[in-house]
Amino acid sequence: MTKPTNETLELLNRHVSVRQYQDTPVSEEQLAAIIEAGQMASTSSNVQAYTVIAVTEPELKKQLAGLAGNQAYVEQCPVFLVWCADLYRLREVTKPYLQDTDTHESSTENFIVATVDVALAAQNAAIAAESLGLGIVYIGGIRNRIAEVSELLGLPELVYPLFGMCLGYPAAATGQRPRLPQPAVLHRNRYNAGILAEQVKSYDEVTSTYLRERTGGQKDTPWSELMAARLAEPIRLHMKDFLDRKGFLRK
Amino acid sequence: MTKPTNETLELLNRHVSVRQYQDTPVSEEQLAAIIEAGQMASTSSNVQAYTVIAVTEPELKKQLAGLAGNQAYVEQCPVFLVWCADLYRLREVTKPYLQDTDTHESSTENFIVATVDVALAAQNAAIAAESLGLGIVYIGGIRNRIAEVSELLGLPELVYPLFGMCLGYPAAATGQRPRLPQPAVLHRNRYNAGILAEQVKSYDEVTSTYLRERTGGQKDTPWSELMAARLAEPIRLHMKDFLDRKGFLRK
Repeated sequence: MTKPTNETLELLNRHVSVRQYQDTPVSEEQLAAIIEAGQMASTSSNVQAYTVIAVTEPELKKQLAGLAGNQAYVEQCPVFLVWCADLYRLREVTKPYLQDTDTHESSTENFIVATVDVALAAQNAAIAAESLGLGIVYIGGIRNRIAEVSELLGLPELVYPLFGMCLGYPAAATGQRPRLPQPAVLHRNRYNAGILAEQVKSYDEVTSTYLRERTGGQKDTPWSELMAARLAEPIRLHMKDFLDRKGFLRK
Repeated sequence: MTKPTNETLELLNRHVSVRQYQDTPVSEEQLAAIIEAGQMASTSSNVQAYTVIAVTEPELKKQLAGLAGNQAYVEQCPVFLVWCADLYRLREVTKPYLQDTDTHESSTENFIVATVDVALAAQNAAIAAESLGLGIVYIGGIRNRIAEVSELLGLPELVYPLFGMCLGYPAAATGQRPRLPQPAVLHRNRYNAGILAEQVKSYDEVTSTYLRERTGGQKDTPWSELMAARLAEPIRLHMKDFLDRKGFLRK
């Protein structure tokens, strides 16, 4: 059998993050279609534990760009989506049924449910956007100063902004970074730690070559060395306290 | 402007969970194409913090079906994918660079990064599978007895199974549950708690009618009442301890 292919697979496989946008606006019809597709993603027991905030006010986008580590494209893109895990909605709408009942919105399990729900919806939305010729980039940087972002957007307790997503027509193409060899991430029947060293060695060579070519010979740091810098970085160590204050992960 | 449409949007919008599968196998080429598309999803700083285990051994599928709450389709589907958040790979491959260095694989931030990475990859894989005429259903039930699932699959520390995914040719179609009205999940510029009551009231009517029609008048519980039962259920309260033992969420 030959390698399967179709329009959707081709779309998924040509994904790149877009960090430069045209001024052309995203229409209301496009936004509605993108969020509609997002909502059709699977959701745990139909809880739909997410809210997405479409930020279009220029001043608000500017403030968010600053809070996300001065990422200019957050301000430049016509629509900046802030994807939030949301257990507040559930707690509020179920209150009439639950007087004097123990509830579990603060459990680690429900934190995971909400976090996964929003990620699945966001990825569907990303694909929908790309199918319309738009580009996206995920912005984890909104967690840099997550308390201020939450304040700015008026997020109540039991809601946290997981990531942002720039949305707009691409103004420039970026290269597609090679991924880990498939045997490193796809294991058979049991976890296979034994193949790790060999697969990563091969990927280190690929990433080193890719970087050398992309930077005209200036950089060639292999993936595992880049990852070492990433793992040693004391990044966003405020998350545990912040989430506790918002009512998450308490049991 | 009219509502945008294309092949990919149509595919996203007709998603249903599949809980009955044909015997027809999933080919190696199909599986490879599905995982390849999964790997093309966005990943935070290219960490690719996930591993997916394709379970095809009948005995192993049977055991997993039992651990997931006796969900027959876990055993019946030709391939059962177990999607794992994986920070073990990162820690292992970066060790040579990080002697006597403080690292942060146990942080809440890195837990979130790994959890989102696996969810985005899984959703891309789900769409890829559906584009090939296959069906899927997410199985959160593998978290019911997560320690035993992890043991069975040989998962090392810093790896946890987030959800399973049945994969195969659909043997039966299921109905598509209506989602929350878009204004309930898509807010503009700031969180809008004020619309909640009205939107959910309208959705309660829709879900009640849907359930009545689907059950021939036997059930008509509105969404918010179903959610109340869900929130009051002390489900998977072992997750916090389990994740701590695996090295996650420690700071």
